[in-house]
Amino acid sequence: MNISSKDYSRLQQLDAAHHLHPFTDHKELRAAGSRIVVRGDGPFVYDSEGNEILDAMAGLWCVNIGYGRHELADAAAAQIRELPYYNSFFKCTVPASVKLAARLVELAPDNINQVFFGSSGSESNDTALRLVRHYWALEGKPEKNIVISRENAYHGSTIAGASLGGMKPMHKQLGGAVPNIVHVIAPYAFEGAEPNESDEAFGLRAARAIEEAILAAGPDKVAAFIGEPIMGAGGVRIPPASYWPEVQRICRQYDVLLMLDEVITAYGRTGEWFAAKTFGITPDTITTAKALTSGYQPLSALLVGDRIASTLVEKGGEFYHGYTYSGHPVCCAVALANLDIIDREALINRVRDDTGPYLSEQLYQKLSGHPLVGETRSVGLMGAVEIVRDKASRLRFEPSGHAATKVRDHAIANGLMVRATGDTIIMSPPLIWTRETIDLAMDRLGTALDLALDDLSGK
Amino acid sequence: MNISSKDYSRLQQLDAAHHLHPFTDHKELRAAGSRIVVRGDGPFVYDSEGNEILDAMAGLWCVNIGYGRHELADAAAAQIRELPYYNSFFKCTVPASVKLAARLVELAPDNINQVFFGSSGSESNDTALRLVRHYWALEGKPEKNIVISRENAYHGSTIAGASLGGMKPMHKQLGGAVPNIVHVIAPYAFEGAEPNESDEAFGLRAARAIEEAILAAGPDKVAAFIGEPIMGAGGVRIPPASYWPEVQRICRQYDVLLMLDEVITAYGRTGEWFAAKTFGITPDTITTAKALTSGYQPLSALLVGDRIASTLVEKGGEFYHGYTYSGHPVCCAVALANLDIIDREALINRVRDDTGPYLSEQLYQKLSGHPLVGETRSVGLMGAVEIVRDKASRLRFEPSGHAATKVRDHAIANGLMVRATGDTIIMSPPLIWTRETIDLAMDRLGTALDLALDDLSGK
Repeated sequence: MNISSKDYSRLQQLDAAHHLHPFTDHKELRAAGSRIVVRGDGPFVYDSEGNEILDAMAGLWCVNIGYGRHELADAAAAQIRELPYYNSFFKCTVPASVKLAARLVELAPDNINQVFFGSSGSESNDTALRLVRHYWALEGKPEKNIVISRENAYHGSTIAGASLGGMKPMHKQLGGAVPNIVHVIAPYAFEGAEPNESDEAFGLRAARAIEEAILAAGPDKVAAFIGEPIMGAGGVRIPPASYWPEVQRICRQYDVLLMLDEVITAYGRTGEWFAAKTFGITPDTITTAKALTSGYQPLSALLVGDRIASTLVEKGGEFYHGYTYSGHPVCCAVALANLDIIDREALINRVRDDTGPYLSEQLYQKLSGHPLVGETRSVGLMGAVEIVRDKASRLRFEPSGHAATKVRDHAIANGLMVRATGDTIIMSPPLIWTRETIDLAMDRLGTALDLALDDLSGK
Repeated sequence: MNISSKDYSRLQQLDAAHHLHPFTDHKELRAAGSRIVVRGDGPFVYDSEGNEILDAMAGLWCVNIGYGRHELADAAAAQIRELPYYNSFFKCTVPASVKLAARLVELAPDNINQVFFGSSGSESNDTALRLVRHYWALEGKPEKNIVISRENAYHGSTIAGASLGGMKPMHKQLGGAVPNIVHVIAPYAFEGAEPNESDEAFGLRAARAIEEAILAAGPDKVAAFIGEPIMGAGGVRIPPASYWPEVQRICRQYDVLLMLDEVITAYGRTGEWFAAKTFGITPDTITTAKALTSGYQPLSALLVGDRIASTLVEKGGEFYHGYTYSGHPVCCAVALANLDIIDREALINRVRDDTGPYLSEQLYQKLSGHPLVGETRSVGLMGAVEIVRDKASRLRFEPSGHAATKVRDHAIANGLMVRATGDTIIMSPPLIWTRETIDLAMDRLGTALDLALDDLSGK
């Protein structure tokens, strides 16, 4: 079979006939037909029908340097010509993975000096889970095994990742989760805070749910707590400022390891290299992926703190874990070129000092007064708009998700790719966005809100 | 930090300081120092000390078209320039993943028409495990949940992959496996057959261990059986010809799904596109990765049979599973270029008709008479040499693995990269090997055996 890349109707047919998509209702998709995305340039993607779409999701939280960076094509090609693959099993290594490991520990919090590579956030969360449990076993406390996570957390889609995560629909389809994982409430003040409870008080209450879980199980049974600094797939849920300091205090008090899932937040999204810095957290592990290569290559890196690493290295013997593509030279070379661009263009400082604050201000000024908007919030270039039926009571439209889906569909039709999670519109744009790009996004989202309001009010 | 790729002693220091390797004892590695592999060309890799090594492992069972194929560099670079990433969530797709899915189902057994992409064999085995259990739940039989696997099977290194696999050292470090997985004996006649039992009789006995496990649990409790057509990491354990037909009969009789892990065997290694054809198996799922891109990019593809796919599509609603990099355009474009080379150079027919039989013959003629060799075996370009103390009784040297490690170390020092698994020397070379390359490998392995014999007999 020889299919032209331009024969879009044939590609759409073949997609429906043979391609199982992630997180998809295939009956529905195959009836509707897929949108074929064919090209990207800077902040825009283009589909086969010629639509130009401003990509406010950076692909899937990852294309932080934008599309069309030829420098990364050159880095990939050069590495493929030199050494397209070699493994780092059997006492071997390759220059690109060593250079990347060294670079990441320079960027990471001071207590982190070791890197374990994988190809996805899922794989690295699997590594992290094995590692914290193995750590306690090596320390002579194999019964310190429970990991505490949060409801609606997202930690990947392997069985272990889905078990760690707190997505109920995923749990229901697992047919057998990894044991000894406990979920507590998430610090989602917009829905979780009581009517007379301040966000800060709610943040403390949400943190203390972890403490209660530790005490319920017994501190000698709890290995670690895992959390995304800002919950991403759950709906860009930004915790109250009171949350993380209290979580850290609790973990230290009960000698529970602190695992951060920064698959979405690492490498600049919050205006720092790591959200650990944004929130003042000193974690034992940091899971990273996505923006490490700006999504140009599948690569993840678990950053491992000294406490775990020294036990693993000194007492561990062989750690029977790893992936064929751990430290893949092409992926690591592309990551290095990606980090070069982030550095050279000072994208992170721009997010921290300019575009991050500007996005926050514009979300508030342009959208928060809209009748459908219950709240806008953002940190760096990661933002959310809550869709409500009634602003004061935060009452939602029925059925759940219906209103936000309308907003999203109008946004996409108007050239803005955003995502709807439940009743929340979320965005996570490339770090190359300027004030002008943000203005364009706000205009399009404002239009989408207006059109959705017309629909929802039956106009 | 700016590290030159040529400053090898610095790279070695940084590797020891910051890089956690897969399946490694880091204390031992860091004392010894890593070998830095810097370049590859055709069947050879080159390390930082200038050694040329004939790579009889094809990286890690994957570099089937050999190193240095500029065509794949061009394919990667072109795709990165056009569209470096887009997701296939949210009713979107990209041309490269559609074309690859369509191509794979053309190559796959007739009952397989759907593809679910991931970035590694581990990820795709996770997908397969979720899918078979989800299938039975959708069919109204959620209690049909047990998966039967084999001792010493390797199905990846996520927690689910390691749980599915039958590697005891991996299980011991898991700190909590995925439930409802049962392991039975593997069809490894060299060690498993009784003194007076023929390989064929043993193959039937090993297959019937699956039947016993099904009957012990109750057929209404067993979802699937999973197996590598030839166990790879376990030691290139080739089952007797009696094994797979009986396994298939048993699976059909008890309505148990048949899952093949062809991460190592797919795309030509056994002289067919899939070992399913080599062994006459009609599976419900085939997990593939590695040679799909010849390891040039991290990519895996779970091939899903019609029985499962039609239930998933028609009755499934949303399948809450998938990866950010499912169907990554760059990886898929490189896979297409890789398959083009395999096709154009007729590598699979060469393995089936020429180099595969030649390897088998040369292993036997050149090595099987050696005092250390208990057996040689191969299928296509996948072979093993059993190291024994006594040929007749198959008695091994003590401690386990010691003798094969000696052989391996001499082989590597003599410019041949092979692997030692327990007391078995294994190889899985690129499909570009010719008769001349096989001759060179046999010479070097013969020398290594001689040197190891000197060591072991205290000369």
